[in-house]
Amino acid sequence: MANITKKVSWSSRADDSAAAAAAAAAAEETPLLNGSEQRRFSRQHSGRGSLCQIGRLSTVELEEEITEDEEPHRGQTREIPHNEKLLSLKYEGLDYDNIENQLFLEEERRMSHMGFRCLEISRWVVCGLIGVLTGLIACFIDIAVEKLAGFKYGVIKRNIENFTETGGLSISLILWGGFNAAVVMLGSIIVAVFEPIAGGSGIPQIKCYLNGVKIPRVVRLKTLVVKVVGVICSVVGGLAVGKEGPMIHSGAVVAAGVSQGRSTSLKRDFKMFEYFRRDTEKRDFVSAGAAAGVSAAFGAPVGGVLFSLEEGASFWNQMLTWRIFFASMISTFTLNFFLSVYHENPGDLSNPGLINFGRFESESLEYNFYEIPLFIAMGAIGGLLGALFNFLNYWLTIFRIRYIHRPCLQVMEAMLVAAVTATVSFTMIYFSTDCQPLVPESNEEYPLQLFCSDGEYNAMASAFFNTPERSVRSLFHSQPGSYNPLTLGLFTLTYFFLACWTYGLAVSAGVFIPSLLIGAAWGRLCGIMLASISSSSLWADPGKYALIGAAAQLGGIVRMTLSLTVIMVEATGNVTYGLPIMLVLMTAKIVGDFFIEGLYDIHIKLQSVPFLHWEAPATSHWLTARELMSSPVTCLNRIEKVGTIVDTLSNTSTNHNGFPVVVQVHGNDEPGKLCGLILRSQLIVLLKHKVFVELARSRLTQRKLQLKDFRDAYPRFPPIQSIHVSQDERECMMDLTEFMNPTPYTVPQDTSLPRVFKLFRALGLRHLVVVDEENRVVGLVTRKDLARYHMGKHGLEELQLAQT
Amino acid sequence: MANITKKVSWSSRADDSAAAAAAAAAAEETPLLNGSEQRRFSRQHSGRGSLCQIGRLSTVELEEEITEDEEPHRGQTREIPHNEKLLSLKYEGLDYDNIENQLFLEEERRMSHMGFRCLEISRWVVCGLIGVLTGLIACFIDIAVEKLAGFKYGVIKRNIENFTETGGLSISLILWGGFNAAVVMLGSIIVAVFEPIAGGSGIPQIKCYLNGVKIPRVVRLKTLVVKVVGVICSVVGGLAVGKEGPMIHSGAVVAAGVSQGRSTSLKRDFKMFEYFRRDTEKRDFVSAGAAAGVSAAFGAPVGGVLFSLEEGASFWNQMLTWRIFFASMISTFTLNFFLSVYHENPGDLSNPGLINFGRFESESLEYNFYEIPLFIAMGAIGGLLGALFNFLNYWLTIFRIRYIHRPCLQVMEAMLVAAVTATVSFTMIYFSTDCQPLVPESNEEYPLQLFCSDGEYNAMASAFFNTPERSVRSLFHSQPGSYNPLTLGLFTLTYFFLACWTYGLAVSAGVFIPSLLIGAAWGRLCGIMLASISSSSLWADPGKYALIGAAAQLGGIVRMTLSLTVIMVEATGNVTYGLPIMLVLMTAKIVGDFFIEGLYDIHIKLQSVPFLHWEAPATSHWLTARELMSSPVTCLNRIEKVGTIVDTLSNTSTNHNGFPVVVQVHGNDEPGKLCGLILRSQLIVLLKHKVFVELARSRLTQRKLQLKDFRDAYPRFPPIQSIHVSQDERECMMDLTEFMNPTPYTVPQDTSLPRVFKLFRALGLRHLVVVDEENRVVGLVTRKDLARYHMGKHGLEELQLAQT
Repeated sequence: MANITKKVSWSSRADDSAAAAAAAAAAEETPLLNGSEQRRFSRQHSGRGSLCQIGRLSTVELEEEITEDEEPHRGQTREIPHNEKLLSLKYEGLDYDNIENQLFLEEERRMSHMGFRCLEISRWVVCGLIGVLTGLIACFIDIAVEKLAGFKYGVIKRNIENFTETGGLSISLILWGGFNAAVVMLGSIIVAVFEPIAGGSGIPQIKCYLNGVKIPRVVRLKTLVVKVVGVICSVVGGLAVGKEGPMIHSGAVVAAGVSQGRSTSLKRDFKMFEYFRRDTEKRDFVSAGAAAGVSAAFGAPVGGVLFSLEEGASFWNQMLTWRIFFASMISTFTLNFFLSVYHENPGDLSNPGLINFGRFESESLEYNFYEIPLFIAMGAIGGLLGALFNFLNYWLTIFRIRYIHRPCLQVMEAMLVAAVTATVSFTMIYFSTDCQPLVPESNEEYPLQLFCSDGEYNAMASAFFNTPERSVRSLFHSQPGSYNPLTLGLFTLTYFFLACWTYGLAVSAGVFIPSLLIGAAWGRLCGIMLASISSSSLWADPGKYALIGAAAQLGGIVRMTLSLTVIMVEATGNVTYGLPIMLVLMTAKIVGDFFIEGLYDIHIKLQSVPFLHWEAPATSHWLTARELMSSPVTCLNRIEKVGTIVDTLSNTSTNHNGFPVVVQVHGNDEPGKLCGLILRSQLIVLLKHKVFVELARSRLTQRKLQLKDFRDAYPRFPPIQSIHVSQDERECMMDLTEFMNPTPYTVPQDTSLPRVFKLFRALGLRHLVVVDEENRVVGLVTRKDLARYHMGKHGLEELQLAQT
Repeated sequence: MANITKKVSWSSRADDSAAAAAAAAAAEETPLLNGSEQRRFSRQHSGRGSLCQIGRLSTVELEEEITEDEEPHRGQTREIPHNEKLLSLKYEGLDYDNIENQLFLEEERRMSHMGFRCLEISRWVVCGLIGVLTGLIACFIDIAVEKLAGFKYGVIKRNIENFTETGGLSISLILWGGFNAAVVMLGSIIVAVFEPIAGGSGIPQIKCYLNGVKIPRVVRLKTLVVKVVGVICSVVGGLAVGKEGPMIHSGAVVAAGVSQGRSTSLKRDFKMFEYFRRDTEKRDFVSAGAAAGVSAAFGAPVGGVLFSLEEGASFWNQMLTWRIFFASMISTFTLNFFLSVYHENPGDLSNPGLINFGRFESESLEYNFYEIPLFIAMGAIGGLLGALFNFLNYWLTIFRIRYIHRPCLQVMEAMLVAAVTATVSFTMIYFSTDCQPLVPESNEEYPLQLFCSDGEYNAMASAFFNTPERSVRSLFHSQPGSYNPLTLGLFTLTYFFLACWTYGLAVSAGVFIPSLLIGAAWGRLCGIMLASISSSSLWADPGKYALIGAAAQLGGIVRMTLSLTVIMVEATGNVTYGLPIMLVLMTAKIVGDFFIEGLYDIHIKLQSVPFLHWEAPATSHWLTARELMSSPVTCLNRIEKVGTIVDTLSNTSTNHNGFPVVVQVHGNDEPGKLCGLILRSQLIVLLKHKVFVELARSRLTQRKLQLKDFRDAYPRFPPIQSIHVSQDERECMMDLTEFMNPTPYTVPQDTSLPRVFKLFRALGLRHLVVVDEENRVVGLVTRKDLARYHMGKHGLEELQLAQT
């Protein structure tokens, strides 16, 4: 099973070997309450020299890992594994906390006031660039999709019109299905074969990144290219997908690239923005990029800022928020400007965003006090339907994890879905008898006459034979009576299952637009039904109910909250709907959460990512740092033997990333007093540059190691195996004083879990040292130790750690 | 001078005696760099028993304090004191960090999952109540102002019309001026005499509260009543003020009141929401209340949330943000609903907010690419004018601090301003020759004909003879040509100085609307001038430029940023203007900040409030906790003699509020090892209930002290002087173990200022203990120690601490 999971997981490819190597760690069940006694006992026995630890006791292996050799295929025949009860050890945290070592402090102290101001200006420049590039990418996607989809629908429309009279419509179906499958195949191949991380909407991955988890390869240039080409293929291929979700991922990649002033993939270093080459700054820029992506996708700059803050901000920083807002604004503006030039109406900047809900004029769409209960009821329906969607998709995803893990199977599934989508659409259109008069002011792009009389068009086709964005707009703004209820009902039903099947395929695709479309369809249906049972003119416009339904369905599926409200409000361009949309989204969230989590959270959980929520579980006050922490801890001395360091780093059974630096006091059998914290990546750089005490003495003229050396190595630090250390060098000593963080945050052992959690989350920590009353190191709390505890149905539950 | 400052400061009244008693503290200049050596030296000499400290060395007294006896009146003849270079010691911090002592943990551990859920639901209920009550207050203010202003303008209009023909218009002037002065006198008396804290807009005070500073009496019921009545009087009295700023303060008071489930002023305890009786919860609710206030004032729920977050959030909490948003929505909705009922159009919910900018239809007001430089230029003008406004107001405020500090003088000044405002308005109207035809669709409320011919009205009167809100709307939406340029220019000039003079009077009044009005006037002027030099139809609508000018002026004065953009966008009801408004506000901020700070920040600085900004000064990395901290620290033993505690608390020279609890190890001459932290308020409650070890033994049956006892005493803990401790009891011992916070946050001495700052700010701390490598207490960092360092014009500056 572990193997299967690896195949489809976000971080599957390059890390297989490392994961396999790490798979031999000591395993022991951790008792929840009396664990501390056991640990203390074992600590006394494991002390040996300055390196006082081997195993990570709070690690629980998958059963399968142990028995794998005997029964390699057993996993496939057993019941579906509950991956969401596991927490993967392969994800690392980001170092959001600045490492304030001597080098850093010296640099900061050398910098003048002017220097800080220049730095601040360059941050703004970077954010501007992020905005412009994100806007351009959005523009490119939009134009490409429009051109290609226009070409496709044009060809098929002509073909259908030809064969409607002669009676060979099955050829049209084959043409349609074949075209879709071919385009989707292209999109699926690049995702499945070249860059699996570019699959899906990318929002779960960006959520994790902003949460502080390093998802491998998620912000690389290759991912961006695959994402952009992939999403164009998916939308043109007629899948039930949107192009909005991937924009968020694209913006994040742009931000991570631009802010570093170099491309590791292209091996170009522009020698710019070197100061920003660390996790702290990069994560801040990525949050700006994600916001710019939202902003370009929905024309919602404020919504974008809120999205980034909701997902990423551990601590509200005024200047950062401004910069995020600036990037968002610039991105909408760029998209807007270039689209207006493309549409030959240059300078008209009033139509922001990839998806344009169209303008809701307040006169026609006022709502009244007594409609609010109706809205709430629709929110509840959205919550229920959303929960059903998520439930189906959850089981489908588990099925995919188990059986559809080879790239060729993934491509075939995607093609199958494309062909089925085309067939179902065609069938629905073929059997539909809903003919509507073709009025000149109608905004039908590709009206299909089919079997309707002259001057009429097939209403089912205007929902199916169109890009999803246009269908949404048509449902919002078409005249009352444009759709008959049966058409809407059938459309909702089929599109619901198609969208559910589509999400999670190995294609680059978002779930926002399909959700909106499903919701708009049943919302409009509700509106029509209300109008038919009541004679008041107030119910006359079904477009209002389509909007509410869309909000309810989207809220029921993704469960984003404040940012979603603002995105919806900004996309409709009308502030009046704030309260109803908020009520609907809240109802949908409450109802949906009662059954199952949001779609993104489900996918994050299925990847076993150590995701930290906003607050510690409510009933966790009885847990203290003593129970939480990993103990004993691998500590290093302030002046440490090179051999010991190399051995520590090479120890695949622990694979720690942070090491407390201690001063030994009373001999070897007691833990040392904390005096600093050093990271694996720092040690790697030190070893690479051979910063040994003995060498420093002999080569006095050699330049001192600088912060620049660490920045040059960032972010792809070489593995320890690639660094050659000779037997002589192993006997040298390394002085860590200058490089360690001399003031790591610490907590006493009695600190409660919520208190530890708050400190950890608020400061975006990666390691938190637990000390006793004498300031001796007794444990280390990392992200995984905190993410392990979560609120289950029966109170507090503990997830198991696994090497998958 | 100290006395003078006290008279007009926010916390002047009840605390005079305490401040005077505390005025004898030891004074010593603190050297910035080598202070630690001196401190260490003095610490060794001051150690006596377990209580190892007397003075607070980093306290600098005002010179005047020392020489006051000799020259009591000297302060009035010396040059103006630079209060903004001082930091007052009289403001206390809020305890935002939970005190996780044994009592608290026991309670939390006893609580079931269901208990937490109920708590969460009651938080939502409280937020709903806050929203409803805030909306009702806004509604009350709106209707009262409309009724009274309608009455006033009706009477004066009739009077003017009568005397226009007969020629006794000076009587009209006297009537107008007299009416205004009388109403303003009422409003000023209640503020100056009964509750000075209710003066002004209240936004600076709420900013400080949300920042974590306890401003005395700012959230009391009496303050609310005075604020509401005061603002009605100010607006009806025709001052150049708005009723929007005070709504934010009102919302905050409502929140603080409702969330506590009792009123200390009315001596009613509803036995509800007892769990919320601590600073953490109360501050969260107050942020919801402030948001509800913004929301009701501007019809901007999202802007309200952002305002609260910008000012208050130390840490983005998802659920809290949702609740804030809920309160905001409910408040707009309530206001909306009741106003729609009042206007006899029940159920029309599309007109939110006290100030209603009117709907900007996008067709008439599209902007084009090449207008953006114009907008930026207008932003720069706004920044300049805003800086001038702030500069004038700054000197005026210092003048007021020095000379106008007695209530009767304050009332007289307010009356003078009211009379002058009426006179100036009347003169302007009288000499204006700008007559406009009275068309039926014009929205003039009180058109004054005066010397115009029949069927025309005086355009100057439509700006002056109106409530400011209506004038703003008229400037935004009147037909092109409704105002001639001279009228607008004169109006801008006079209103600018009137508004500047008015802000800071002892009346309850906001500065938002006057700023918008000034900006709208010169913005419209810009629009007209642009239209006259260009023939394009694009420039035809001056309303667009009025909007941009209003944003620029407001941004130049108050310098709020993200939230202000969103408030403006929401108030215009049109998302299209997001980018221009943002650019304008940013330009205004950058230009304005070059000269002087924002108006609210000026007033906060003049009150010497220890306000913590978002980030530590950039060039402060060379300062460490060792230099920052107050040292030596008054520590208590885990089991301490009652007499020692009483003496410590009674020591008016230190007046500390938090005491590290230590365990002595190697005798008395070394600082003890940290084992907890206890607050003055906790000790007071313990003393009041006589929780002594000896008594506990003798009265075994007596009930244990519970968290409820602390909550009942919150927030007005009695002073130590009111607690009687007999000589026998002084010999008893107190066991603090159960009550102290056993896991206070600590930092090592070498931690840099930015790192300390980040920890302090992110977690909303009040005390941060500095320990050495052995976990011994060596210092204590409080809010004042951090707020002392700020960026001045010549790099890092250090403010002086003063008892004022």
